[in-house]
Amino acid sequence: MASEEMVVTPWEVAGEIDYSKLIEQFGTQQLTDRLLEELRKYTGELHIQLRRKIFFSHRDLDWLLEKYRMGEKFVLYTGRGPSGNVHLGHVIPWIFTKHLQDKFDAKLYFQLTDDEKFLVSQNLTIKDTLRLTYDNALDVLATGFDVKKTFLISNVRNVQTLYKVAVEVAKHVTYSTAKAVFGFKESSNIGIIFFPAMQAAPCFLESAISGRNVPCLIPAAIDQDPYWRITRDVAPKLNYYKPAQIHCKFLPGLGKGGKMSSSMPETCIFTTDDPDVAAGKIMNAYTGGRATVEEQRRLGANPYACPIYYYEMFLFEQDDVKLAEIENRCRSGDLLCGEHKASLAPKVVRFLMEHQKRREKAKDVVSECFIDPCDKELQTSLGLEMF
Amino acid sequence: MASEEMVVTPWEVAGEIDYSKLIEQFGTQQLTDRLLEELRKYTGELHIQLRRKIFFSHRDLDWLLEKYRMGEKFVLYTGRGPSGNVHLGHVIPWIFTKHLQDKFDAKLYFQLTDDEKFLVSQNLTIKDTLRLTYDNALDVLATGFDVKKTFLISNVRNVQTLYKVAVEVAKHVTYSTAKAVFGFKESSNIGIIFFPAMQAAPCFLESAISGRNVPCLIPAAIDQDPYWRITRDVAPKLNYYKPAQIHCKFLPGLGKGGKMSSSMPETCIFTTDDPDVAAGKIMNAYTGGRATVEEQRRLGANPYACPIYYYEMFLFEQDDVKLAEIENRCRSGDLLCGEHKASLAPKVVRFLMEHQKRREKAKDVVSECFIDPCDKELQTSLGLEMF
Repeated sequence: MASEEMVVTPWEVAGEIDYSKLIEQFGTQQLTDRLLEELRKYTGELHIQLRRKIFFSHRDLDWLLEKYRMGEKFVLYTGRGPSGNVHLGHVIPWIFTKHLQDKFDAKLYFQLTDDEKFLVSQNLTIKDTLRLTYDNALDVLATGFDVKKTFLISNVRNVQTLYKVAVEVAKHVTYSTAKAVFGFKESSNIGIIFFPAMQAAPCFLESAISGRNVPCLIPAAIDQDPYWRITRDVAPKLNYYKPAQIHCKFLPGLGKGGKMSSSMPETCIFTTDDPDVAAGKIMNAYTGGRATVEEQRRLGANPYACPIYYYEMFLFEQDDVKLAEIENRCRSGDLLCGEHKASLAPKVVRFLMEHQKRREKAKDVVSECFIDPCDKELQTSLGLEMF
Repeated sequence: MASEEMVVTPWEVAGEIDYSKLIEQFGTQQLTDRLLEELRKYTGELHIQLRRKIFFSHRDLDWLLEKYRMGEKFVLYTGRGPSGNVHLGHVIPWIFTKHLQDKFDAKLYFQLTDDEKFLVSQNLTIKDTLRLTYDNALDVLATGFDVKKTFLISNVRNVQTLYKVAVEVAKHVTYSTAKAVFGFKESSNIGIIFFPAMQAAPCFLESAISGRNVPCLIPAAIDQDPYWRITRDVAPKLNYYKPAQIHCKFLPGLGKGGKMSSSMPETCIFTTDDPDVAAGKIMNAYTGGRATVEEQRRLGANPYACPIYYYEMFLFEQDDVKLAEIENRCRSGDLLCGEHKASLAPKVVRFLMEHQKRREKAKDVVSECFIDPCDKELQTSLGLEMF
């Protein structure tokens, strides 16, 4: 189904993805060893998603770390469009975000763009997207964020907190620019045309609330970059810092090619999948193997074309030595695909069981984690106390 | 300054205005004597703004009255863009709206579009427009609305109450339609492109809150009609009633031609003008008189080209017999312009003094009249209770 041409936009990721080319196309910076070294000063051993270049690109991370070195703490901001169930591909950058939250003791704004998903989905009502917001928020918290430092935002229910900053941003974004960046058409609705301002707003929220400039770092998959490009252009006009970004790659789906996508549920491990069902999906996955056992023993397989290998790399094999061993055994023909699947499946089962346990517990705290749109102090900080 | 070509849009009113042509252009209905008769059943003697055809056009007023006859009460909705001080031209439809509120015992939603004015004004900050919202709200209440039945909306501070309905509207308005209706350009900002959905939202607010369809009548100057055209197209898609409208003419400025406009303060009576200053503006006004007294005595003057006469007609001479007398004396050359101005000026002074007294008193109640964005019951009615 996937076209061969690489397409990476907030709404579509397709084709064989060349991440170096994306860095060039998007005008971001490569995450260099020098910069990783800088990060290590604060985090200790590098997170596996950095060691393995899953986070591979950035904007202004060097600037952000320099600010941090000088004593300016930053806030983290990331998000999720609640259009359906959460799958492992979504969780990957959240795990890294939690790592950053822990190491830098950072406040996190997490935006659930229920307005966006309602506006672009023919079949979703607002009630549906609000239910998904709640549902997805449980997965966010199951990732292990510090609930005392994590502020969930439902765009529909927390608009009171966002709208003022959003219209300030919107005033500086012309239709012409938005069209060029997001490909809006004559048939695009006027809600989705405004939406980039809603996604931009949390970048400046901490600054708007505290009345002084606070750096913001956004860990997210690189397809979201167009939003930050626009936001960064507007920032100096509002006298805010430009938000910094750190971009990750996409977890592949269990089929041939393409990122994990909810639209193909059989190639997708949902966090709410029955663990046995998930194990079955693993066992049925496409791999980088050969047509026959004989051929594979003789020629070896290709881990870099194999979702099973990537699952180990992105999440399930934390030990670099063991990962290298898996790669070598795969390439040499020693590790057959069935065998590899059978060893990955229980790891996935364990992960899901633990996630689901934490997800259940999240129900007790999730309501406290959403920003209170009626918090008097917050409203006053934003200059929105009633007349 | 005014061009000769008639232009009537939400942002510009210029040229000689042909109201019959507007009815045709906008596709609205003339307010017929038959319909006025229908209205009279509920209001008793017709309001002067109806008798004098200041309100002259409508959409679905017949439908609304039929609903009312069958026992369905309606809500009123009108508004104001707080870009500066309120002048008499703004107050005219409010006076009529108050009349409707009294006679039909109707709830009124009054929207102050501070987001819009911020988005289109190079020089206004959000803080400025919020100050103007407060300031203009005092004038609204000074008109005499029943504070128990009047619900003020600041778009920025009450967005929590509007946004859900606004995105529901926005989903059904394409950029193409919005561009055709409002003349958006490539250089328009993405906030103002979304704004029509914010102005539409209060049409459906009562229905959204109460969970059943409630008719809505919008009394407003006819330049706002494009907003309602869009809103009416969307209504059936959301299973709401189309909002009905009743449209008024523009109070002329004190100069030659054109509606009263804040951008020409010397031709404008502001509600906050020192009454003596206002009297001076009246004395300096352009009139429909002749070049010399001798000529005027001989040929008479033209009241229909004279702001002084229109002030009597729109507001200051409530007695139809006396108004006819003024017109006759003007036409015959019996009433000279200086004399007429001198008799109008004290009426304006008295009006302003009374308005300003009520405006001062409004400060005690204005905060209660704004919708409380944190009203739990309201939030729950809208399905926006927090998680």
